[in-house]
This record gives sequence, C-alpha cells and structure tokens, in this order.
Amino acid sequence: MSSSLLCLVFLFFTIVAEATYSPGGFHHLSSLRQNKKASKSKPKLPFETRYFPQNLDHFSFTPESYKVFYQKYLINNRFWRKGGPIFVYTGNEGDIDWFATNTGFMSDIAPKFRALLVFIEHRFYGESMPFGKKLHKSPETLGYLSSQQALADYAILIRSLKQNLSSEASPVVVFGGSYGGMLAAWFRLKYPHITIGALASSAPILHFDNIVPLTSFYDAISQDFKDASVNCFNVIKRSWEELDAISTKKNGLPELSKKFRTCKGLHSQYSTRDWLMGAFVYTAMVNYATAANFMAPLPGYPVEEMCKIVDKFPRGSSNLDRAFAAASLYYNYSGSEKCFEIEQQTDDHGLDGWQWQACTEMVMPMSCSNQSMFPPYDNDYEAFKENCMSRYGVKPRPHWITTEFGGMKIETVLKRFGSNIIFSNGMQDPWSRGGVLKNISSSIVALVTKKGAHHADLRAATKDDPEWLKEQRRQEIAIIEKWISDYYRDLKED
Amino acid sequence: MSSSLLCLVFLFFTIVAEATYSPGGFHHLSSLRQNKKASKSKPKLPFETRYFPQNLDHFSFTPESYKVFYQKYLINNRFWRKGGPIFVYTGNEGDIDWFATNTGFMSDIAPKFRALLVFIEHRFYGESMPFGKKLHKSPETLGYLSSQQALADYAILIRSLKQNLSSEASPVVVFGGSYGGMLAAWFRLKYPHITIGALASSAPILHFDNIVPLTSFYDAISQDFKDASVNCFNVIKRSWEELDAISTKKNGLPELSKKFRTCKGLHSQYSTRDWLMGAFVYTAMVNYATAANFMAPLPGYPVEEMCKIVDKFPRGSSNLDRAFAAASLYYNYSGSEKCFEIEQQTDDHGLDGWQWQACTEMVMPMSCSNQSMFPPYDNDYEAFKENCMSRYGVKPRPHWITTEFGGMKIETVLKRFGSNIIFSNGMQDPWSRGGVLKNISSSIVALVTKKGAHHADLRAATKDDPEWLKEQRRQEIAIIEKWISDYYRDLKED
Repeated sequence: MSSSLLCLVFLFFTIVAEATYSPGGFHHLSSLRQNKKASKSKPKLPFETRYFPQNLDHFSFTPESYKVFYQKYLINNRFWRKGGPIFVYTGNEGDIDWFATNTGFMSDIAPKFRALLVFIEHRFYGESMPFGKKLHKSPETLGYLSSQQALADYAILIRSLKQNLSSEASPVVVFGGSYGGMLAAWFRLKYPHITIGALASSAPILHFDNIVPLTSFYDAISQDFKDASVNCFNVIKRSWEELDAISTKKNGLPELSKKFRTCKGLHSQYSTRDWLMGAFVYTAMVNYATAANFMAPLPGYPVEEMCKIVDKFPRGSSNLDRAFAAASLYYNYSGSEKCFEIEQQTDDHGLDGWQWQACTEMVMPMSCSNQSMFPPYDNDYEAFKENCMSRYGVKPRPHWITTEFGGMKIETVLKRFGSNIIFSNGMQDPWSRGGVLKNISSSIVALVTKKGAHHADLRAATKDDPEWLKEQRRQEIAIIEKWISDYYRDLKED
Repeated sequence: MSSSLLCLVFLFFTIVAEATYSPGGFHHLSSLRQNKKASKSKPKLPFETRYFPQNLDHFSFTPESYKVFYQKYLINNRFWRKGGPIFVYTGNEGDIDWFATNTGFMSDIAPKFRALLVFIEHRFYGESMPFGKKLHKSPETLGYLSSQQALADYAILIRSLKQNLSSEASPVVVFGGSYGGMLAAWFRLKYPHITIGALASSAPILHFDNIVPLTSFYDAISQDFKDASVNCFNVIKRSWEELDAISTKKNGLPELSKKFRTCKGLHSQYSTRDWLMGAFVYTAMVNYATAANFMAPLPGYPVEEMCKIVDKFPRGSSNLDRAFAAASLYYNYSGSEKCFEIEQQTDDHGLDGWQWQACTEMVMPMSCSNQSMFPPYDNDYEAFKENCMSRYGVKPRPHWITTEFGGMKIETVLKRFGSNIIFSNGMQDPWSRGGVLKNISSSIVALVTKKGAHHADLRAATKDDPEWLKEQRRQEIAIIEKWISDYYRDLKED
C-alpha cells in the first residue's frame, strides 16, 4: 500500500524526533504485512520493466561520481503514438511497482490523452540500488541518496527516453504523491525545459524550517477525530495516561502484552504507544471510503468507523481499552489477525533509505500540542541530531531544502515566477497542512477538498468515489489538457 | 583585465578542440601581463574582504561533502540601509577582485538604489580554494568544481548574509558577465526564492550542444574585421598559409622567431598561430572605444585601429607581416614591449580551473568555416575527449549543461515560465552569438546593441561612452527599478 508507505514520512518523526521513544515501532511494515493481498494487487495496466544506466553523482566530477548504477523504470505504450504526451511518475521512497499499482489515475486517463506511461524508481529504493541489493548504512554510500540527485536522474532518463523514441517534441507531464509529489513540483520548478507541468498530490513542500507550525500535523489528525466524534477524541486523548500508568507499574509489560494481544511479550512500553499513534495517523491519511482504500471492507470513512467502535463501548470502560479496539480496526480490519506483532519489525521496504533522507535533508520537525489528542511533546532538534549522528554518522542540514527549493513566502516568490503546477490536497490528510492550499497564480493552483485523504486523487477511480473526488480529478484533467494544448500551440508558432 | 580573463572561455577551444595545436598558447596571460597597470587598478569603491565557510558538496552527504572551505567575498555597505536592495555579483573564473574592479556599473548605480554591494568569488578560483592554495590537477579534488555547486554556494551565502544583517526581506538582484552572466541567469532560474532578478551580460548560455552553429564564434569575429575593412579581413585570411609555409621550411622556426620578435627562440610553430588568433579574438571582445577599455590609448575602436595598420602597409607587403603588425597592436598598444614572450606561459590566474570545467560540463564546441578569416578546422570531439582524459583523467559530460539548465527551444520553455532576466549583448562581441538575442516574455528580455563588446555594459561609465552604451545601461536601470518596486509592492500586499 503506497498509503502506508507514505507514513514513512510521518514515522520517522515519532521515532527520531521523540527522544523518549525507542526506535522500533515501524508500524507501516505491520500494515503492509497485514495488507499483503492489497500490496500484491496488480496495476491496472501491464508495464514493461526496464533499467537505465545513471551516474552516481550528477553534481560533481570525482572518479566516484562516474560509477554507474541501473535505475529501474516501468513503461506502458499501449495508448501512445509518437509525438504524443508522456506521463511520468517521479518515484518516491519505495519500490516503483507499488506506486504504479497505487497510481491508477494515470492509467485511467492514459487512453484519453493517448499518453505514454512511465514510472521511474527513486535511487536507493526498490531495485535501483547503486551499491548492491542491500542498503548499507554507511554515509560513504548513502551519501549519494538525495532529492536533487533523484531529480537529475529523472531529467537524464526522460531526455534519453525521448531521444530513443525519436519523440523529442513530446510534452512531458510529471505526477507524484506525498514525497513523490514534492519531487514532481520541484521537478517542474527546476527542470521546466523537461516537463511542461506537474500534478503534485499531497506534497508537503512547506513542512520544513518552521514554515508551517510544528503542531499542524498532529492537530489535523486530532481534528479529524473530533469531527467524527468529540467523545472519540476525548477517549483517545485520555488513553495515554492510562497507558503510562500500566507501563510504569511493576509487571506492567506483561499486562500490556496481554491487553494488546501481542504475539510475543513486549520489551518496551513505547512500542505500544507507537502502535496506537500509528493506527490513528495512518487511518487519518487513508480516510476516504472507496474500494481503492485498503480498508475498503469497512462500510464508511475509516476515522468514523474507528470512532463508532470507541463510542459503542459501555459507559465506564477504560479509555485505553477503547483506544486499543479502535487501533485494532486499522491493523485488523479484515478480522483475520490472531495476535499483533507490535515489536517485530524488519526493514525490507525502504525505511532505512527514508530515515537517511530525514537525517540529512528531509528534516520535517513536528511537535504535539496540548490541544491535540496525542501525548504532548516538544520538538527536540538536538536529540534528533544526535540520533542521526549515532545511527548514520551524519549531520542533518535542516535549512538545505528551503535553500535549494524555496518555500518561505512561496506566494510572493511564485506569483511572478514559474507556471503549471497543481497542488492537490484533501484537508482530512494531516500532510495537507504542509501543502500549498491557495492558488498562487493563474497556473500555479491549489485544488483543495474539505474531505480527502493522502493523494486519494491519484488512485484508480472506482464506482463509489464521492462527488468531491470525481470533481477534483475532472479539474486536474482539464488543467492538464490546457497545458498540453498550450504546448502544442506554442510548438506550432515556433 | 576581466575582458582578458573571459578569453579563457575562448582559449580553451583553440587549445583543446584543435588536435593539431600544441597546448601552450595561453595568450590571455600575456595580455594580462602586458596590462599590469590596468589589472592592478583599484575598484571604484573600497570593499571589505570576508570569508564564508561552505560545505565542499551541497548535493551529496558523504563524509567528504562536509569538508569546509572558506569562500571569499567582498562587501560595501556605504549606500545601504537595512531592508534595502542587495546587489550580488556571481563570480566567475578568476579572482573576485578583478570582477569587482571591472564591474564598475554596480558601483555606479549603488547610490541611486541605496544598494549593498557583494561580490562572491567562485569556488576553486582566487583565494576560494578548498584544497590548499594551489590547484591540484586531480579529479578527486577538482571534482567538486562545478557550476551547480557554485550556484548553491551563492544561495547559501546570500541567505546567511541576509540573516546576519537582519534584513531577510531585502530584494537581491544578481549581476554577472560572460560565465558570470551565465551563472546569474541560471541563478535566477534555479533560485527565484533567493533573487528577484538577474542581469546576465554577454552570457552565452546557448553555446552548448549545437544549439547555435559551431562556426558562429569565429564567424562573428571575421564579420567584425570585414565590417572594419574587407582588405583587412582578406589579409588576415591569407596570412595563415604564409605562416604555414615558413613553419614547414627548414630553419623555419628561427625565421618565425625573428619575424615575431620573440624574446626567446620558438619551440613550436603553433604558438604563433595561437598568438595571432588570440589577438584578433580578444580585440573583437574588447571592441569598444572608451576609457574603460584597457586599449584606451588608441583613438578609436580597436578592430578598426588594427585594420588601419593592416591597410596602411604598402602594396605587395606580405600578409603575414601585416597580420603580425595588427596583432602587435593588441599585445603592445602602449609601445613599451621590446619583444614578445609568445611561449612563456604560466597559469597563475585560474586557467587550469576553467580548463577543468571545460573538460567536464562547460563543453562549448567550436569550428572554423571556410568563410571565416581563420584557418578552417572541424570540431573533433573525440580528440577533445582524449585530451581531457589524458590531462585530468576525466570524461566530459557534453549534454549535462542543457539537461540541468536547458537551452534547447528556450523561447518556448521560458515563454510560460520564469521572469526577470535581462540578457544584454553587444553584437560585435563574438560571444553574443551564443546569447539570448530576442525577448522571450515581457520580463525575460534581450537588450542587444549593434556595436558593443564583451559585457561592456558592466564596466564603469566614462565620459566618452557612446550613446548606445548609455542607452543600454539606462534600460537596465529602469528594468531593475521595476523589479524592485514590484517586489516591495508584493511584500506590502502580503
């Protein structure tokens, strides 16, 4: 599930930003495991897999920089004819197949645009590994994993592909969700000569350097739950104290293990907190009710379904029991799990890569306010920095992203610069708070829906999609059509 | 003389692109030596010298990337008040002091704009050496010399400077000539959040990847000479055969040494060809008649003065003698040279740095057509590549600049993207042929003069500046005024 994947972004901060947390609760992997069926589902269109030779480093010319690795990409040309548009997904932190499977929107609209579809894998994820299959945790090798290097990879691959297709005049439109959406937007800003426009879905490009309040992410989730049920919000908010009370008791861990129905005895109290928080965060992120949601067996919106469970408990029940029952819905919506593997985590899906990125450039600090339903904490940059140093031997560059890509006063900067970017966001997605939520110019626009989860618009259309989602996609299609027709008109006038 | 400096760009191609040439004729250094007086002249305003710590590599996170070096910059705040504009020169291939001395335009307009002046030195030039004072010719160290790293240096330094001045809302305008002009234009395109606009003077950003014809540079010089005198053009065109005839004679070298009044006996015939070609190239580049031109003791335009010498010879004189006399004017306009040091060259002024750049990313191929007044030759990319490999152990990336910065179909790309760039060019400057010569949009404009030499507009105004030059500068000032007033208005509306 790419929706789970994208939690990587969030997860890093529960793990690293909170010094009190043990680094262990990689919930997203649990959810992936539990959603094997969904994650093994096939993309709507068949793709041919190809590999493209890339230099390790595009911005320096040391001998090491010339080392070649093979970047994986997927391609489908069923609807395309020479000269026609090329739709490129700028891959984010994970196997590119996941993104191809979970970005059905591109396949849905390919016939209408007669577009070539290309999904490019991000370096250091999936099979696109410059230093062997396994990710080595050394800064000597991971040092070449960065967003700018990834964008340059995309630029070089697209240019070469067009040349090989003898279709250099084809307009290229880039698409991406979450970190992939950030890459799509940045790609349009940095490489306007390679792409005519970008659809950046749920791209929190303003979640850096205190541009948006550090509390906004958790506040947004809290709001989602409050909107569903004030009681539900209060129950979850009060559950943390009860959790702490048990945790600090003598023999608290065995009691917790029992309460949380863990498959194995717990080693740390923090894993249960991570596990609970993760359930609420991810559920908010996937909070839409269509068949494209992997929690689709549920009849309604996942947050509402969770709150129904909380609200159904008899008066006087423990808040923690209710919170656990709510969280269980996320981890066991199919009802097939006999116990929960709360601590057993391995990283076979790119989390190490993302944590490296978060420790170098993707520094997106967060904190929890007293008003949220989560346990309050302040962002502790020093602890974060030390953690990165001890894990990877690397010092974060917390101001680099805003220096390289901007973000401060973005409305003023882009009001008179750049064009053709759609920032789409659903306000129920907590990442929306770090996104661009207002139109900046006539062609740098925000498509915001009151409901809507993490890049729901990029998923395949289903018959039970709500009207607001259909409308958002209609607008996206109309805007992309305009970019393409403008481009062809300019080309003729040339 | 920065005008001589800029010949580096040209020189590399006479040296490397022509496989028949021995790599030796570094004319620009001769001209620098001969113009000691001019090159030691002081800038119009006094500057404070500062040093700023920079990471070696901004685009990777290897341990080596964190190595710190000190980047030199010059600053003058005489006219500035907090919140006011900051004018930044994006330094090119050489000591930043030279560019400060030779970019009097910025000092001239600083009082009017109440601007802070900042001149930033390019990494690996002047004192801004990451690996000790001397430039090491190894790809392990030179590998970090690249245009993108330089732009990132500028972005980081400017951001930090504004923060330290507590003047983060100050609008920044960047200026640059020749390669510095390319950097200024690219900086605006890549870092619109750091600069509100760029004056890119004589910036041949289209001199890559066959966007402009390979012959355009030498053709433009030939046209300058033909415009001054058809006879002059013909004499120079015919002189090469005579030079070859002597060179290939037995005892030809001593004869050539005598003819060229060399201080020491010649070791190679090619040095004289380089020496002659250099004189014509550089004279075309500085072809304007004001006190700011280091050939100012001449009464008129340098190319015309040269051609007067050629035309004055009695009928029947050898073409080579006339060409030599013409070239002597460039190398000895003051009349004080007793002999010419044609082969004695050392690189103490950044040529090695530039040659490295030309061997990696700044691949600007050239050739000489039969229609030019120069000895014809075809561009030989394979020979060039081998030369780079044997000199530096590095393989050029000839398509990188256009992949990273664009250039192909620039009118179509920038018609709907970007804003606030002035491309100024004088058509007598051979580099103009690789510049942007037509308006692209209402705010990406070309200021082109029929006359005009290499970034003449950036030099200090003098009382005998011609009207076209005054007018070009007036337009530049008006446009920059508009950028700044738009910016302050946007800021208020925020």
